[in-house]
Amino acid sequence: MSKKVFLQESEMPTQWYNVIPDIPGGLEPPLDPATGKPLDPKMLQAIFPDPLIEQEMSDKSWIDIPDEVNEILKIWRPSPLVRATRLEQMIGSKARIYYKNEAVSPAGSHKPNSAVAQVYYNKICGIKKIVTETGAGQWGSSLSMACCFFGLECLVYMVKCSYEQKPFRRSMMQAWKGEVIPSPSDTTESGRDVLKNDPDCPGSLGIAISEAVEIAAQNSDTNYALGSVLNHVLLHQTVIGLEAKKQFVIGNEKQPDIIVGCCGGGSNFGGIVVPYLRDKLDGADIRFIGVEPSACPTLTRGHFAYDFGDLAGLTPLLKMHTLGSKFVPPGIHAGGLRYHGMSPIVSALVRDGLVEPVALHQKECFEAATIFARSEGIIPAPESSHAIRATIIEALKDENKDKVILFNLSGHGHFDMTSYDKYYAGELHDYNLPEHELAKAAEHLPKL
Amino acid sequence: MSKKVFLQESEMPTQWYNVIPDIPGGLEPPLDPATGKPLDPKMLQAIFPDPLIEQEMSDKSWIDIPDEVNEILKIWRPSPLVRATRLEQMIGSKARIYYKNEAVSPAGSHKPNSAVAQVYYNKICGIKKIVTETGAGQWGSSLSMACCFFGLECLVYMVKCSYEQKPFRRSMMQAWKGEVIPSPSDTTESGRDVLKNDPDCPGSLGIAISEAVEIAAQNSDTNYALGSVLNHVLLHQTVIGLEAKKQFVIGNEKQPDIIVGCCGGGSNFGGIVVPYLRDKLDGADIRFIGVEPSACPTLTRGHFAYDFGDLAGLTPLLKMHTLGSKFVPPGIHAGGLRYHGMSPIVSALVRDGLVEPVALHQKECFEAATIFARSEGIIPAPESSHAIRATIIEALKDENKDKVILFNLSGHGHFDMTSYDKYYAGELHDYNLPEHELAKAAEHLPKL
Repeated sequence: MSKKVFLQESEMPTQWYNVIPDIPGGLEPPLDPATGKPLDPKMLQAIFPDPLIEQEMSDKSWIDIPDEVNEILKIWRPSPLVRATRLEQMIGSKARIYYKNEAVSPAGSHKPNSAVAQVYYNKICGIKKIVTETGAGQWGSSLSMACCFFGLECLVYMVKCSYEQKPFRRSMMQAWKGEVIPSPSDTTESGRDVLKNDPDCPGSLGIAISEAVEIAAQNSDTNYALGSVLNHVLLHQTVIGLEAKKQFVIGNEKQPDIIVGCCGGGSNFGGIVVPYLRDKLDGADIRFIGVEPSACPTLTRGHFAYDFGDLAGLTPLLKMHTLGSKFVPPGIHAGGLRYHGMSPIVSALVRDGLVEPVALHQKECFEAATIFARSEGIIPAPESSHAIRATIIEALKDENKDKVILFNLSGHGHFDMTSYDKYYAGELHDYNLPEHELAKAAEHLPKL
Repeated sequence: MSKKVFLQESEMPTQWYNVIPDIPGGLEPPLDPATGKPLDPKMLQAIFPDPLIEQEMSDKSWIDIPDEVNEILKIWRPSPLVRATRLEQMIGSKARIYYKNEAVSPAGSHKPNSAVAQVYYNKICGIKKIVTETGAGQWGSSLSMACCFFGLECLVYMVKCSYEQKPFRRSMMQAWKGEVIPSPSDTTESGRDVLKNDPDCPGSLGIAISEAVEIAAQNSDTNYALGSVLNHVLLHQTVIGLEAKKQFVIGNEKQPDIIVGCCGGGSNFGGIVVPYLRDKLDGADIRFIGVEPSACPTLTRGHFAYDFGDLAGLTPLLKMHTLGSKFVPPGIHAGGLRYHGMSPIVSALVRDGLVEPVALHQKECFEAATIFARSEGIIPAPESSHAIRATIIEALKDENKDKVILFNLSGHGHFDMTSYDKYYAGELHDYNLPEHELAKAAEHLPKL
């Protein structure tokens, strides 16, 4: 294969792949926390437009991508599939390594794949403003950009420790007219509650979600948008894996034996792996490796249980791997991976033994990021560096000789240079979460 | 045409186009400042490897691109040609607008096109270390990356005002093992001279070049590299225009009627326009518009004369448009355009009436950058925003109805968000340089 494979626009997917009907053990339904019974979809109408609610629950395997959405995705899609030849040489890889470069979007990650779709559906349903949360800032920027394209207002609650680490993510959102508030804030009841107990709280995605949902629920022309976790978000991200499959064919390379992605809420990982699920179920020898930070080990040390998506308990209960919605992860530098829960789809695939979860420490991931930058040039997002580290580990195993490994380069690190500075200055620390701390957080799991 | 045209790697140029033999009025030779006579190429051997000296003087129209260079360029090349449909709609353009997206390189601009070639030739000539200057940081990052790829050391003198505006450009260079020193510095005689007279000097490319050349001249295993201005740099950048020509054919679009680029030293502009020069000389109705900042109006208000490339007078004399090598431009936010001189090739094309120079103020360029970000998504480098502004001006003219305009998006602005913040806060100022100031600077032009 050549260094890169581009698809032409005419080869872009025209339908998203909905994995839900193919999950062997099925998906358990979201529950209404008040009754403990399956949620009436109408309850979601306060914060989501109908087409997204339908997608969230859909049992159709393929869902059409609106032309208006694909027209915008064409600004940067199809994204390149690249052979990491220079990385292979630098580490002495036994395997052939490829990456899907999702960093090429204007916002710098895979997130706009869903942001554009979500804003489109909100727009056609008459919504004027969307409120959201962001960790590393990748989702907040993507939603700001998408709202700007469709003429909607955008309000972003940004996890405070990321807000402070990444001042220029905020600038970027402002370039796209997004309004940004560090979370926890005094603009919501949920935020004020947190600040009362802990004025120096670094924030978390769970807290920021509570703030955003609270605002959206209060205003009829305002909706909420989530950048990961939910089924419809993973649905939109399947363009990644669908494109990759075609690119391996065009590039005359076999389909990957191992697919690796980082897992925060699960959307970039889900997007690249689920289009390969049917192949695996049909007997293909293919492994899916989901990589999370040791400081927030949802899949490897969490519980598979019904839990809230946010700190304040405003969301429906989702059956997922979770550390408990009261868990506030340490302020690691992969802000996009600091989430107590996990996509129900990815969680179900772990439950069914189809996805292998792995937890890695941040310093070894920054080391891998540096190896990647010095071989392939691109400076990866700290989140994506988790996938790179896991890829390098697999690439050096004898058993993976002659295998093809694909990882998702979910974003670039241009707005994460403070974190790189700290890593190079030896100021980054790894966190070994004690068992009792996780046990304490799990005490808050809702009793059903 | 579709939104984007990708070339396959097999369609990448295998030769650079050397415009020198095609310049109607010819190029005047560089002079030895000591004798005022044409420079003996051997004098350049103290700081440049032989293959680059040959390219600098070559009269061959086509020069082979080494495979080792193209293998690295393939990490991001061929770069996409994109139809700016959403920009056209937003401004009500009469013309069809395209941009060549050079921001897709890992360093974020067109600069690696030459950095990779220059480091390759230095490497095969046994050089261990390269010293350079950088303004906005685009060139310094590109050279750091290229040195990292080929295993050479890299030392970068970064113009102090940019160093302070862009802390993360330095971090990026360090990720690629580059060492960065703010200029003027006390590490060189040239730097100490400047600091003695003006301890708060914001620096300039001319000063930083002096510092870098001084170090390179003192060490036999150390060479100098320049990111623009020189003929061999423009040669390497012709891949931009050569690719674009093929992309218009593949995209079933006519070749552009107007080509626009920003001009600092002239390399991105030269790279996109000179492959079209023969067409223009053969009668094609095509305009080349070079856009410079009003605060550093080399082409529009400078002299066409022999001058030094640097402040201290260490370089050969080049026949070019210049404001005088003692001119220190105001600290505008397009650091890459703050250079007193201009590529001799671009200067000769202006002399011959083949390139139209235009000067624009920085605020109108940031406004154009914002329009671009809000329509096409990409946040452009402040340098590139000059090309965008000029493109918008042309696109709105009745006379350009149905015309095709191509501009070079030379880089992204991910490391320029401080400048965007200042623009949005209303803190940016335009500079109207008084005539007497320019006249005073011109007094320092060498007498021959």
